[in-house]
Amino acid sequence: MVNKLLLLTRENEVYRDLLIKRNLADLVILGDSPSSITEANIWFAEPALAAPLLNHARHLRWLQSTFAGVDKLMAPRQRQDYQLTNVRGIFGPLMSEYLFGYLLAHNRQHQHYQQLQQQKLWQPGNYQTLQGQQLLLLGTGSIAVHIATTAKHFGMKVIGINRKGQAITGFDLVDKIDNLSQYLPEADVIASVLPNTPATQNILNRQSLALLKSDAVLFNLGRGNVLDLDALAAQLALKPHQQAILDVFNQEPLPSDHPIWLSTNAIITPHVAAPSFPMQTVDVFCNNYALWLNEQPLNFRVDFENGY
Amino acid sequence: MVNKLLLLTRENEVYRDLLIKRNLADLVILGDSPSSITEANIWFAEPALAAPLLNHARHLRWLQSTFAGVDKLMAPRQRQDYQLTNVRGIFGPLMSEYLFGYLLAHNRQHQHYQQLQQQKLWQPGNYQTLQGQQLLLLGTGSIAVHIATTAKHFGMKVIGINRKGQAITGFDLVDKIDNLSQYLPEADVIASVLPNTPATQNILNRQSLALLKSDAVLFNLGRGNVLDLDALAAQLALKPHQQAILDVFNQEPLPSDHPIWLSTNAIITPHVAAPSFPMQTVDVFCNNYALWLNEQPLNFRVDFENGY
Repeated sequence: MVNKLLLLTRENEVYRDLLIKRNLADLVILGDSPSSITEANIWFAEPALAAPLLNHARHLRWLQSTFAGVDKLMAPRQRQDYQLTNVRGIFGPLMSEYLFGYLLAHNRQHQHYQQLQQQKLWQPGNYQTLQGQQLLLLGTGSIAVHIATTAKHFGMKVIGINRKGQAITGFDLVDKIDNLSQYLPEADVIASVLPNTPATQNILNRQSLALLKSDAVLFNLGRGNVLDLDALAAQLALKPHQQAILDVFNQEPLPSDHPIWLSTNAIITPHVAAPSFPMQTVDVFCNNYALWLNEQPLNFRVDFENGY
Repeated sequence: MVNKLLLLTRENEVYRDLLIKRNLADLVILGDSPSSITEANIWFAEPALAAPLLNHARHLRWLQSTFAGVDKLMAPRQRQDYQLTNVRGIFGPLMSEYLFGYLLAHNRQHQHYQQLQQQKLWQPGNYQTLQGQQLLLLGTGSIAVHIATTAKHFGMKVIGINRKGQAITGFDLVDKIDNLSQYLPEADVIASVLPNTPATQNILNRQSLALLKSDAVLFNLGRGNVLDLDALAAQLALKPHQQAILDVFNQEPLPSDHPIWLSTNAIITPHVAAPSFPMQTVDVFCNNYALWLNEQPLNFRVDFENGY
């Protein structure tokens, strides 16, 4: 049987070229025309582009997401009569680069020294080391484990939070999400890499944010739904030594009238912490396609119940 | 026998308090008066403060440096009739924080996204990952080994350069300094953590700097003498995609009329990559003092021949 592949990404030409070079058996890569939506049995797609087209699919049996986050495909009335796989294992290093880049820039006062340089001033100052600091990671999946490993390398203590509190190698301690408020007042750095699920909705809200240390650093790298952005913006205005570094938002692009854009102690980036590099995503697809041809279970299957 | 300790640091009161708490046996901590210089048999000192006073020492038998860099005590006519120890093992993590903070800030375009934020612009762009990049480390001592470990964690390839090219665990490859020019054209990131010795003088000069990639990132974290700063400033003006991050200079403070201050692709910091935290330095001293009392060989002895 010939498999018919639909590409639904913002970089279809890049993906097409990479896939052609792999010479995959029994695979036809369909053109970018509407008829391909009905015709394809395999989609290789960005969730946000795939979601509105799912109901037009006639033969869809497997959708390989190019992203880790697949919440756009989880809406209650969406079809769930196909196999969904996402991309894992490649985002941990990228997320670590993002997190530790900004964390070190904050701790080692890049802005301060930049200002001194502009004035040609030589003024050694005090700063903090990451050694001995406490990192609270919301989420304990593969991305969180990679971040935890980096944090341990830098001498940090790492606490993980997950749904049931089950222990995970690489963390000094893991507890369940219901006990989150116990850990917020102790953490020097808090980072959420949680997926968008009902269980994670708004857990960083006005009450829980108020528990943070007066000089805490907060990262949101997972999904925007975890965080009450208005509450955070209000708090940052009152706590000038706190710092937020935000890459994901409930509404993306972040609306230009949101006050957090201009907060002096918030850094806003446009969902770039861990982009999908096509080369790596194509590797995941090709490995899965080999399994598909052999009728074996695919890697990185997403459970429509859990949402991840 | 009672040992008499002279403190010669810019933070004598901090050091005095920390040492008093340790209750060290048979140790008198002398006051900050000139007579203490002649009287003390042990100095716990910053090299730059100790150097001009050495000739007034009558009883000096051991000098514990509070810094790693002891080149100020190595001048040809300086006394060498005492035991010199420095501080090692604590700077690797701090140097790693500095290096990877600035390297990630560069690769992940912190400045670019900061400018976008100021304009409330949501524009995801392209960037590089450290994975697969090549780091060329000049120096393979304990600081370099720690940096190499961090670089491997981030997926980099790490080449080390030392005097004789002897292999060191933690590096993908080590070669001798005479072969440096072979590696400069391949390196994405070059970092010097070399001490100030005649053998390292000016090895990054106009000719060798010209071999760097057009988008290379160069760190100098060891000593200023390694680098021809004027040659670098001239080159950076012609190679806008190269980036230098400099923490050490031949003349410190860096003179305010040096053109490198205003180079848009140079970052200047005032010798803060790895400061001596008194708490950690006092640990080194106390361990060595216990060895001293037992007439055992001290840790981290400096060889006046090699200069490190």
